[in-house]
Amino acid sequence: MKKDPRFQPVDAAVTPRFAGIATFMRTQRHDVSPELDIALVGVPFDIGVNYRAGARQGPAAVREASRLIRRVHNVSGIAPYDICNVADVGDAPVNPIDLHRSIAMIEEFFAKIHAAGALPLSIGGDHTVPLPILRALAKDRPVGIFHIDSHADTLDTLADTKINHATTFRRGVEEGLIDPKRTIQIGLRGSRFSPDDIKWGEDAGFTCITFEDYERLGRDRVIAKIHEVIGTGPTYMTIDIDGIDPAWAPGTGVPEIGGLTPREVQVMVRSLQGRHLVGGDICEVAPCFDPTGITAVTAANLMWEMLCVLAESKAKRGS
Amino acid sequence: MKKDPRFQPVDAAVTPRFAGIATFMRTQRHDVSPELDIALVGVPFDIGVNYRAGARQGPAAVREASRLIRRVHNVSGIAPYDICNVADVGDAPVNPIDLHRSIAMIEEFFAKIHAAGALPLSIGGDHTVPLPILRALAKDRPVGIFHIDSHADTLDTLADTKINHATTFRRGVEEGLIDPKRTIQIGLRGSRFSPDDIKWGEDAGFTCITFEDYERLGRDRVIAKIHEVIGTGPTYMTIDIDGIDPAWAPGTGVPEIGGLTPREVQVMVRSLQGRHLVGGDICEVAPCFDPTGITAVTAANLMWEMLCVLAESKAKRGS
Amino acid sequence: MKKDPRFQPVDAAVTPRFAGIATFMRTQRHDVSPELDIALVGVPFDIGVNYRAGARQGPAAVREASRLIRRVHNVSGIAPYDICNVADVGDAPVNPIDLHRSIAMIEEFFAKIHAAGALPLSIGGDHTVPLPILRALAKDRPVGIFHIDSHADTLDTLADTKINHATTFRRGVEEGLIDPKRTIQIGLRGSRFSPDDIKWGEDAGFTCITFEDYERLGRDRVIAKIHEVIGTGPTYMTIDIDGIDPAWAPGTGVPEIGGLTPREVQVMVRSLQGRHLVGGDICEVAPCFDPTGITAVTAANLMWEMLCVLAESKAKRGS
Amino acid sequence: MKKDPRFQPVDAAVTPRFAGIATFMRTQRHDVSPELDIALVGVPFDIGVNYRAGARQGPAAVREASRLIRRVHNVSGIAPYDICNVADVGDAPVNPIDLHRSIAMIEEFFAKIHAAGALPLSIGGDHTVPLPILRALAKDRPVGIFHIDSHADTLDTLADTKINHATTFRRGVEEGLIDPKRTIQIGLRGSRFSPDDIKWGEDAGFTCITFEDYERLGRDRVIAKIHEVIGTGPTYMTIDIDGIDPAWAPGTGVPEIGGLTPREVQVMVRSLQGRHLVGGDICEVAPCFDPTGITAVTAANLMWEMLCVLAESKAKRGS
Amino acid sequence: MKKDPRFQPVDAAVTPRFAGIATFMRTQRHDVSPELDIALVGVPFDIGVNYRAGARQGPAAVREASRLIRRVHNVSGIAPYDICNVADVGDAPVNPIDLHRSIAMIEEFFAKIHAAGALPLSIGGDHTVPLPILRALAKDRPVGIFHIDSHADTLDTLADTKINHATTFRRGVEEGLIDPKRTIQIGLRGSRFSPDDIKWGEDAGFTCITFEDYERLGRDRVIAKIHEVIGTGPTYMTIDIDGIDPAWAPGTGVPEIGGLTPREVQVMVRSLQGRHLVGGDICEVAPCFDPTGITAVTAANLMWEMLCVLAESKAKRGS
Amino acid sequence: MKKDPRFQPVDAAVTPRFAGIATFMRTQRHDVSPELDIALVGVPFDIGVNYRAGARQGPAAVREASRLIRRVHNVSGIAPYDICNVADVGDAPVNPIDLHRSIAMIEEFFAKIHAAGALPLSIGGDHTVPLPILRALAKDRPVGIFHIDSHADTLDTLADTKINHATTFRRGVEEGLIDPKRTIQIGLRGSRFSPDDIKWGEDAGFTCITFEDYERLGRDRVIAKIHEVIGTGPTYMTIDIDGIDPAWAPGTGVPEIGGLTPREVQVMVRSLQGRHLVGGDICEVAPCFDPTGITAVTAANLMWEMLCVLAESKAKRGS
Repeated sequence: MKKDPRFQPVDAAVTPRFAGIATFMRTQRHDVSPELDIALVGVPFDIGVNYRAGARQGPAAVREASRLIRRVHNVSGIAPYDICNVADVGDAPVNPIDLHRSIAMIEEFFAKIHAAGALPLSIGGDHTVPLPILRALAKDRPVGIFHIDSHADTLDTLADTKINHATTFRRGVEEGLIDPKRTIQIGLRGSRFSPDDIKWGEDAGFTCITFEDYERLGRDRVIAKIHEVIGTGPTYMTIDIDGIDPAWAPGTGVPEIGGLTPREVQVMVRSLQGRHLVGGDICEVAPCFDPTGITAVTAANLMWEMLCVLAESKAKRGS
Repeated sequence: MKKDPRFQPVDAAVTPRFAGIATFMRTQRHDVSPELDIALVGVPFDIGVNYRAGARQGPAAVREASRLIRRVHNVSGIAPYDICNVADVGDAPVNPIDLHRSIAMIEEFFAKIHAAGALPLSIGGDHTVPLPILRALAKDRPVGIFHIDSHADTLDTLADTKINHATTFRRGVEEGLIDPKRTIQIGLRGSRFSPDDIKWGEDAGFTCITFEDYERLGRDRVIAKIHEVIGTGPTYMTIDIDGIDPAWAPGTGVPEIGGLTPREVQVMVRSLQGRHLVGGDICEVAPCFDPTGITAVTAANLMWEMLCVLAESKAKRGS
Repeated sequence: MKKDPRFQPVDAAVTPRFAGIATFMRTQRHDVSPELDIALVGVPFDIGVNYRAGARQGPAAVREASRLIRRVHNVSGIAPYDICNVADVGDAPVNPIDLHRSIAMIEEFFAKIHAAGALPLSIGGDHTVPLPILRALAKDRPVGIFHIDSHADTLDTLADTKINHATTFRRGVEEGLIDPKRTIQIGLRGSRFSPDDIKWGEDAGFTCITFEDYERLGRDRVIAKIHEVIGTGPTYMTIDIDGIDPAWAPGTGVPEIGGLTPREVQVMVRSLQGRHLVGGDICEVAPCFDPTGITAVTAANLMWEMLCVLAESKAKRGS
Repeated sequence: MKKDPRFQPVDAAVTPRFAGIATFMRTQRHDVSPELDIALVGVPFDIGVNYRAGARQGPAAVREASRLIRRVHNVSGIAPYDICNVADVGDAPVNPIDLHRSIAMIEEFFAKIHAAGALPLSIGGDHTVPLPILRALAKDRPVGIFHIDSHADTLDTLADTKINHATTFRRGVEEGLIDPKRTIQIGLRGSRFSPDDIKWGEDAGFTCITFEDYERLGRDRVIAKIHEVIGTGPTYMTIDIDGIDPAWAPGTGVPEIGGLTPREVQVMVRSLQGRHLVGGDICEVAPCFDPTGITAVTAANLMWEMLCVLAESKAKRGS
Repeated sequence: MKKDPRFQPVDAAVTPRFAGIATFMRTQRHDVSPELDIALVGVPFDIGVNYRAGARQGPAAVREASRLIRRVHNVSGIAPYDICNVADVGDAPVNPIDLHRSIAMIEEFFAKIHAAGALPLSIGGDHTVPLPILRALAKDRPVGIFHIDSHADTLDTLADTKINHATTFRRGVEEGLIDPKRTIQIGLRGSRFSPDDIKWGEDAGFTCITFEDYERLGRDRVIAKIHEVIGTGPTYMTIDIDGIDPAWAPGTGVPEIGGLTPREVQVMVRSLQGRHLVGGDICEVAPCFDPTGITAVTAANLMWEMLCVLAESKAKRGS
Repeated sequence: MKKDPRFQPVDAAVTPRFAGIATFMRTQRHDVSPELDIALVGVPFDIGVNYRAGARQGPAAVREASRLIRRVHNVSGIAPYDICNVADVGDAPVNPIDLHRSIAMIEEFFAKIHAAGALPLSIGGDHTVPLPILRALAKDRPVGIFHIDSHADTLDTLADTKINHATTFRRGVEEGLIDPKRTIQIGLRGSRFSPDDIKWGEDAGFTCITFEDYERLGRDRVIAKIHEVIGTGPTYMTIDIDGIDPAWAPGTGVPEIGGLTPREVQVMVRSLQGRHLVGGDICEVAPCFDPTGITAVTAANLMWEMLCVLAESKAKRGS
């Protein structure tokens, strides 16, 4: 087990958790480099939305909230900093006004992380963000997707545009980045624009678990389904925070009642231990709608859950 | 199936949901008229309360929050605007200072809706509001009541007054507007003024499902009970938002912990599909205690659930 | 004096101000038509910003806050609804994702208002919004500008883009829409990107009153300066709410301390009585940063001030 | 100088200010009794309003905020607890639903205070509250009024009712409780329902200082005017918190921009030192619109200012 | 059954719940005396924390929120004021700056309550508070502990100090105040500083129910476990509000997602009916992080649950 | 002019201001080193307070808010990064529970900065913080103090302790760190514990400008007084944010109405250009009481003002 002192988070026994410059989970700030195993990244981009903006401040809020995360997982016992070099590599570059340039800049930044051999774990940004990430990570071979969301994000266009937070996973399939047979979407719900809102993914081969399905199957059978779908191939994790019920995620652009609890998502992410994971993101955290801070706290904790399984995967496989 | 272009909500593909004057679920603003099938109404009245006021701003907050509602139900597939003419008819008139005049004005407004042949679906206002509504709708024959609440609202007097938000359903029975045998109250809980707080309803023939009962029976058996109680006769739906647990409804006058989730209420309302429904309301949404907006979002979504089953009932029966 | 009953705001003696669907100052909702003298418009556009978004919800928040406005001006005695037909014409159409299409759609909408012979008074939206408005209003002849702001908005590019909330008035001059000699900017302040941030306007002929200038000259001399600059020609009023000190306008994208009070701006706008006014806007109201609601209340009251002087100008001139 | 240990506020050197049950300025809780010189009272009544309710929680919020008040005035040096027996006598009784009964109950409570020989200093409640207080205090002889407000509250009716927060001072004159020649209203502003909104008071003999007047005259001359108007006769002080500019008083029912600062009101109240003062109130503090707490802090401090001058008056005169 | 009129809470039928000085559940304010059966106490102490402070304002916020509690338990039917003399004895004295003096002062205050024969039910304060309470109550014989928390609070030191909110129950065992065999901790979760964070308690004989255990066992078996562990001996109840999931308790220093609902804790506390209970507390309510007030409402209701079982225990046993 | 690329803040033309890890004014994070001219420091310490805590989160909030600061001063034209090497050196170490250890740790950290030849500019932390800073900076010779505050902080003890936020400047004089003849306190106000609250400083030789003095003298004469008092000797600047009026600084422990505006303080700080400045701090920013964020925005801008004059002083003198 390596335990590189340059990649250890600030020690809470020495520096209280309220102190110091906020980085993700109090990890060190490092530039992308080959020594890095896991790169924690912010993607402050939210001009792909069609209702409420605000996710550009998501990375800042989650950095601040993630001060309370400690260093050992309470259930799995995974201690990510003992087995991987983890650092906060800062935010992906973006253009605040030009969507297409931003998408290119984000892709380029994640390509650099990928080239360095590190796995990215990021906080968006709106849910357009996985598209440039996957363009960087999955150019060579399509990946499976573990996807928590209340919306399928598989429309063809939104507001007559092709790249936005409602079309991401359709574009991903069309571009050969996503293996639809190894893709599972969980928590789908909410009123619909048309009866066919989620149909495209189903037709393409996605496994779509609506909230009704989730409730009917129960968590254990959903977890079995996740494993059946993603199998042992490379899998990317993406959580739209609006997949979580608004009691825990009011701070998001498009809240939908009747959703998953953080507990459900914690247990699902934990179940990914042992799988081949290639990265992950949490999107749509909009702090300006989060006066209690609960959305940022929830995202910080789910980022921790993802880090633990990602670190184990990386430590085992080296990729 | 009719699809009257004058009664279609604003199209989100053309006008983003954050744009335009806020009406309930972005429906058109129309005056009461015989073409209307379902009238969405605000009732900005809150001077019948004995703890915290604020529900007078409920209609405004729910109109704003309901921007995010789309047009097809994700589970039942009901598309209310395809089968009914639905419009926002504005707010019932009220007197801000004189309770009794307000009650009369509200009754008169709903009588006009009733006379026009439309079914009302309203956002209160405090929970005194169903009394004038029932006076307008149920003059001819008592109706059954599907009632979500943490309080039974069947006291004889509160603060030595007869008409207020704690006496509504007792007055309704006394006045012959409510059929107690066809009335079910779900979610009752909270500390009590006296051991007999909910006894009057039980004695009168109400089926009272406390939260303890709900938990013991489970949702499916409660739904069976609802159907058994309301039967096939005309039924009015009323939701005091404090029936919902405060995690989703902090913005209300008298929150009570340990309550129903929005999911539970969604499923119960959905189960009313096929029943003979004559209208509905959601009361006690007090935006000034709702800094996250979650209460308004919850109410907007439950209004949508009620609209779908109401539209189907109206489309089938014509009344 | 005309007093068209179709263009009167809702009467507070009959309908309490908290009741009814929120329109600007409780005016009637009308489509653009030749009968209209003044069109109140929302412009829910905020994808031209480089710091914090949120102004897309500005029109909704100001409609709600403007419920408290009454019908007679307390100082000038102007009663706008007695002398002009005023209505809320709803929001300009926008595309939520495509900046350039939005700009075109906004221009087209204001061109329609202009063609109908009405003067527009709008709530943005970020401060890119005056550009398409001026394209609609000032095609034929450049207009003078009365401009309250903490920033000059005369950069050449921001984030390597030409159309955004920091370049509006430079573009306006370049396109011949703005007469720089008849343009006055008041309240400029805040740290700067470079020593030349406001220089372009000064060189172009703008009168730039920094906050230092304002304090040194005093309000009366600034008002004299305003009149000297704008003269008797057609003048457009534009208020970036961040011109107001953050104690009254925390709900904005880029607050700058040490600014104008609402009182100062009230008195300056009132001084425009008698001038030739062709329209106005208030921009950058971002409700998601406005938990007390003071920014929306301030904007609603300043909109009222602008309405009064605009109505008088229109009533006198007919254009 | 008396310094009755039973009437001393909790000592901050012993008990930190955040500790203990919240009473007004940490005074002792006492029932009304002849030993009392000044009675601090809450009046949790807000059903006389026509826009936003919430002032019923005013007393609770001001009790909590007033923890930070100490015991010696920083400018006048007055130490009220050294010269008067001051206590928190709790809240006046009210009926939450019946306006007229509440008004009678409030009057009766203040009559008891008056009969005991104590001067009342109260926190409302809406601005209907001074009417029953004056009925209790001024039965025998009309009093002069020092009145800070943005509204004159001299309408004849509001919503077709006679007793409400917009008619108080007209009723007071009609009932012979107020001497109009010795009444001064300061801070009047805001848009108006009609050109005559404040005319009744002027005609009756009130001295009405609009904000325009205030600005034109300047503070010193306004203070001279106050003294000229109230003279040496018995005078009652009443502050509608909306007289204060919304930057310091967002937590109120009807905020009006462009108003007095707390500093202006502090200095005006301090100037009353030496006058014959018979009581005072601060009304319209609505905590549900006050997320920063600044309104309650402002009210607590102005209550302290009033207490100091009231104590000195009482100590000198004994009545 | 005694029903001492001096120890009855304010009657809501006479005085509306929003009225009056805020005491715990509107009980009377009394000094500690032998007549008292149960003393409601605030402990405004929060300088033992290592992340976010704010619990010093906990007692004030819970007093205010507890206005909505009535007088009869809705499930057990217990009416505590019929069987016990209950009063609010105010706040324990503390020194705001000196931790050790505060601990001594708190102990002394609770010793006085204990000596008077009353059982204490308190609102902290941070979770250091149970240590001085137990020093006062459990000097003679160790007590069992019913402990709801997300953290075990059994570290040896935190920040190199021995007395703080993370070491309380270890110190309690070491000092012989706590019987580890009769101690149960429920709800433990959250990331950990080291793999051994909760090990000390387990080794000492505590029964530690992590959230994983809770979910696996189910509520009924956990309740059976509680009874098995605490048996019939004297038992103290302590709830760290962060044991509750953040959806209901955002207002706390160290929120941890995936926790117990208030409903779960209500039912567990109710199950203690019939046990030998010697007191209780709720700690870590930090109102400055609780803009919706839900944390205070939750704490107020759980305090009520504890009061009911405590009153029954006291009434039966006399001690 | 040097313009070391390693000490330039993040370029807003390249990286939008909402992007990147939050450091003070987007400067680079560097360890203390001899290359540094000015060290920006956070001091997350707040256990020296006697009312409301929360300033431990001050540095984090100001780092976040200071994203909006640009790089050139709009009035003086000073461009600090052109003339000095400026960096964010992180937070001073503290012990979250032990006041005395924290004071020692803070002193040691600032001694290191001092030894490296850099001038410190810090964000507290409560107003105990200047004591350890002065112990580090002024060991050799006492410094003059430019002090903005509503409280003099010259008590002998508070809560029977000697080191806390109310005794700082008395201790500083007693320890020979402060030259009382060269010390000026501006903005003093608020009710007092005793008539002598500010007397000690006056007797010691401080120049105390109460708010009354400030208003009477006017800003220009106060500035003249500042210069007269501090002269040309080494001077330290300290701003307790509660010196600012609560409209701009609600987020603080002990707000006092009737205070200085940010504008007044901006101009006073700007006037220090040309003086011999040795460092500065802003204390008592408590984000948990700052829901609008205005306090943090105000502090960030005042920090910028201080940076500009400090940079010029350092560039000229080299010390």
